[in-house]
Amino acid sequence: MQYSSRHLEDLVGRLAKLPGIGKKTAQRLAFHLLRTDKEEAVGLAAAIARVRDEVSTCERCGNVAETQPCYFCADERRDGTVLCVVEHPGDVLALEKSGAYRGQYYVLRGTLAPLDGVTAADLRIDRLLERVKSEGIREVILALNPTSQGEATSHFLAEVLGGLGVQITRIARGVPMGSEIELSDQATLARALEGRKQI
Amino acid sequence: MQYSSRHLEDLVGRLAKLPGIGKKTAQRLAFHLLRTDKEEAVGLAAAIARVRDEVSTCERCGNVAETQPCYFCADERRDGTVLCVVEHPGDVLALEKSGAYRGQYYVLRGTLAPLDGVTAADLRIDRLLERVKSEGIREVILALNPTSQGEATSHFLAEVLGGLGVQITRIARGVPMGSEIELSDQATLARALEGRKQI
Repeated sequence: MQYSSRHLEDLVGRLAKLPGIGKKTAQRLAFHLLRTDKEEAVGLAAAIARVRDEVSTCERCGNVAETQPCYFCADERRDGTVLCVVEHPGDVLALEKSGAYRGQYYVLRGTLAPLDGVTAADLRIDRLLERVKSEGIREVILALNPTSQGEATSHFLAEVLGGLGVQITRIARGVPMGSEIELSDQATLARALEGRKQI
Repeated sequence: MQYSSRHLEDLVGRLAKLPGIGKKTAQRLAFHLLRTDKEEAVGLAAAIARVRDEVSTCERCGNVAETQPCYFCADERRDGTVLCVVEHPGDVLALEKSGAYRGQYYVLRGTLAPLDGVTAADLRIDRLLERVKSEGIREVILALNPTSQGEATSHFLAEVLGGLGVQITRIARGVPMGSEIELSDQATLARALEGRKQI
């Protein structure tokens, strides 16, 4: 045994299972948690447990929620006629941080992957169509990841939403702010040129 | 509010306080903990709490311990006549991983810093001297960090241990394995030359 405490060894092992946390970082974190202010460590433990106990999925939009529906769905100051479709709850967070969107969300919790058995039913696309039909939605913004899976799912959504008389848009793909054109990849530059706008 | 769950927001805030964990990583970890196998998340929470509840400091050697004395102090297969002095419990772990040491440890839990009010008493140096006197220790290995504080504390220890008729050694400072001499700093190369050995 290399550790003088089995509990510490167990904690290092568990921390090292987290994504992006290697063995060295796990050790550093474990020693930090052992040494730091007790409230910080115990509070973190409680916060992890609380998230698992009390946070679930909003049945209406698919986002993370601790109420039904979630705060965003219940927020009447949001524009209920615009619906932004994303893959994951983390995407909602990123869009909220941009401060540029005040409509509602629909979180698919994935992308279509027929070979892995992920179908339209798994992404609750029927529920999305129902909402678009029944709630007077005038625009659906597709904000799926610019990957082959995201693109394929966007195409599918555009097709099934096509007959409903709703405006369907997709967020712009182009060169990210602060980047260098010289270093941009060819697919990004092709999209950026394709999506050019008059100034 | 950017998060649709206050609990999730709280968890991200707490994770972001950990050393080396930025806001983005904290978000990624929080979403992972929300989504992963429940046992993994709840087990991690319990492991953090357990470390704070059940792991303390070995009164004999200053290492982390869940028994008194710790497993290392209690392990009779270890050579009780050699004592390795380190700054922190993490140093013990690193030395154990080297597989090159089978003696006992003494963890100072810091270095002398008179300006910050850290004195010999805070590092329990009197207890170290007592052990050297009473336990038939024949060698004290100083394995403090090769920093100015570590060096100053090593000098102090060499002085106070000097009268006790015990062999005092210090671990070698030199070029680390796998490194390149071309890229080594001048202080390291100076120590490496100074510490050269006949082959």
